[in-house]
Amino acid sequence: MPSILDNLKSVTKKGKSKMVLLVADGLGGIPHPEFGYQTELEAAKTPNLDELAKRSVLGLSCAVNYGITPGSGPGHVGLFGYNPEELTIGRGVLEALGVGFALEAGDVAARANFATQDAEGVIVDRRAGRISTEECSRIVSKIEQEVKEIEGVKIILKPGMEHRFVLVLRGDGLGDRIKDTDPQKEGSRPYEPEALDQGSKKTARVLRLFLEKAQKIIKDEPKANAILLRGFALPPKLEKFSERYGGIRALAIAIYPMYKGITRLFGFDTPDIEGTLEDEINYLKEKWEDYDFFFVHYKDTDKAGEDGDFSKKVKCIEYLDKFIPEILSLSPDVLLITADHSTPTLLHSHSWHPSPVLLCSPYAGADNCQRFTERECKNGYLGQVPAQALMSLMLANGLRLGKFGA
Amino acid sequence: MPSILDNLKSVTKKGKSKMVLLVADGLGGIPHPEFGYQTELEAAKTPNLDELAKRSVLGLSCAVNYGITPGSGPGHVGLFGYNPEELTIGRGVLEALGVGFALEAGDVAARANFATQDAEGVIVDRRAGRISTEECSRIVSKIEQEVKEIEGVKIILKPGMEHRFVLVLRGDGLGDRIKDTDPQKEGSRPYEPEALDQGSKKTARVLRLFLEKAQKIIKDEPKANAILLRGFALPPKLEKFSERYGGIRALAIAIYPMYKGITRLFGFDTPDIEGTLEDEINYLKEKWEDYDFFFVHYKDTDKAGEDGDFSKKVKCIEYLDKFIPEILSLSPDVLLITADHSTPTLLHSHSWHPSPVLLCSPYAGADNCQRFTERECKNGYLGQVPAQALMSLMLANGLRLGKFGA
Repeated sequence: MPSILDNLKSVTKKGKSKMVLLVADGLGGIPHPEFGYQTELEAAKTPNLDELAKRSVLGLSCAVNYGITPGSGPGHVGLFGYNPEELTIGRGVLEALGVGFALEAGDVAARANFATQDAEGVIVDRRAGRISTEECSRIVSKIEQEVKEIEGVKIILKPGMEHRFVLVLRGDGLGDRIKDTDPQKEGSRPYEPEALDQGSKKTARVLRLFLEKAQKIIKDEPKANAILLRGFALPPKLEKFSERYGGIRALAIAIYPMYKGITRLFGFDTPDIEGTLEDEINYLKEKWEDYDFFFVHYKDTDKAGEDGDFSKKVKCIEYLDKFIPEILSLSPDVLLITADHSTPTLLHSHSWHPSPVLLCSPYAGADNCQRFTERECKNGYLGQVPAQALMSLMLANGLRLGKFGA
Repeated sequence: MPSILDNLKSVTKKGKSKMVLLVADGLGGIPHPEFGYQTELEAAKTPNLDELAKRSVLGLSCAVNYGITPGSGPGHVGLFGYNPEELTIGRGVLEALGVGFALEAGDVAARANFATQDAEGVIVDRRAGRISTEECSRIVSKIEQEVKEIEGVKIILKPGMEHRFVLVLRGDGLGDRIKDTDPQKEGSRPYEPEALDQGSKKTARVLRLFLEKAQKIIKDEPKANAILLRGFALPPKLEKFSERYGGIRALAIAIYPMYKGITRLFGFDTPDIEGTLEDEINYLKEKWEDYDFFFVHYKDTDKAGEDGDFSKKVKCIEYLDKFIPEILSLSPDVLLITADHSTPTLLHSHSWHPSPVLLCSPYAGADNCQRFTERECKNGYLGQVPAQALMSLMLANGLRLGKFGA
């Protein structure tokens, strides 16, 4: 069924409000038995968030669906107000964005691994003994220098961590419906790149020629003597953020390449800044007059969660808390704080748990919550909302949505 | 995805229960900073609603979707158990209903404005200086007397407030896919009525002839010398209320023309009563034996909200409260009190905030809420439900829904 949330364009209106979406990646957690059955948010000392919570409405946001753990792609697709079950960002595209590569429309990207094969071409190590990142760079350069173009298609390689790299094909008429060559297990030969539709035949042909040439170049490498490819993908066709939301001028402030890349896909202005949250907030202040919508991404909460380091995640939350007054000093009309997914330290990974949400605006209503924690959010006025709804709630509170129906 | 809520017919069963849906238009509000951060419901003295809340279940109802502000059309479509994102009532139809005109199937209705154009036909005032309602009536009569029929299509005009009126075309084979002639801005000429599909060509032809004739009649009016049309619409095709819900006999009690009109669209028996809520409740008592389902519409809460008059809205709520014992004296099996949308006085307009819901029935369950307010409703047993679900909850509590599946 078509949802009005997928067609907000039909009700947007102009406005002058300033909106801030502050995303603390992986913020939510679950009670940890070794830390008094508290979550990281509960254990953290957050005087500024507490004070803000008392004059905001809270809730819980579900990124994709009950029990579903979102990757960073779906997590942000939801936050930006698109349906993450419908709009998918392919693996290859996310990998390319993750290494900071600026994909263009029509590029086909794939996740690539160096691997080790035996004399019969059978894969004996899918990760080439996890060669060093420097080693990976060296081999990638070697291939790049010798294979620059095939059938008019530009071959672009970007090294990643250890045995990983990204392959991008740039040229006309390339489809992305290509079967993975990575057999995903040892003891098999890599598959041939096979086109799964008519429009991907040229891609498959170029890939076969590329692999043939690259294979010859690396055949004497002791470990990295094979290449496995998967997740072939074109950048998704999508309605740009500004077009979808009544022409709002949107700025993304993120340090990590993947989030810069994702926001660029949606058409945000995404400067190539570096540094810490402090630098991000300084940048926010600097650009305050120039935009309507500000996406600020804080990564460290997720990293601490993935490391399973409870105390570190608590510290990251306390660090974040210090910047709340600085954001508030800008007097945003709407401030929404949440995450793209939860990353409980108990799980050392992304999880399916809904994310805490705090929404502050003169028109948001009010509840009686005292702190910004998962359990307080459970009692918040917003209830449990799909992530996709957060954008419409922000725009409504920014008085940028008109009436639906007469 | 098909929803059982759109196919309740498949599970309805006969019964003898009496159900009352009391709608206080625009009831919900948000905490008002000038009134101790209370909402209108919180500030009002409502002993009867309080007492009722203690033995009912409460909840919050979302009319359309998160952040979406519903017009009166979608608001009531939802309350009547239809999906407001699928079943839309065109602007012209609502305008016709709003001036009390009884639309028939096949009628094409449009919202019309008198406007002022200069010698070149350029619109210089889209509202003709907001001529008086009497003036509007006079000019509408003048046109009506001279243009009665075109190509066998009856031309019907109904004056509205100030510069507004309604145009209805009644005849065979009329489509409603016609481009607005109203350019929605000054400095442009009106557009020609243009058919957007094959089935609307006759409508466009008749409209062009109508405008030509009408234009000549009003050409010497000092202000109202042009006509702008928009929102062309046929009454929606819909499953009638009684057919959808197991043949229940449904009575609508409303004072305002628009709500009479909407309920007639759905096939309610809608008498043309006038007066106050007191008259409505007296009518309810009078007809108690003759119907199963009673829709009672109270308008004044919305009006006070739109006026931004907090104290007046509080008084309207207190006035409503006095009639609760009278409704209860009839011993309805199910009583549901809610709104079609919120109208916070802080916003002076309809809003996106969910509406408070109170459901009283021996089978509704129970919660620990003490008052009928937004924040108490937030903690209610019903949680946050789509407006469309209120009908199925009423019918279930009226023991008029059978088992789904074996």
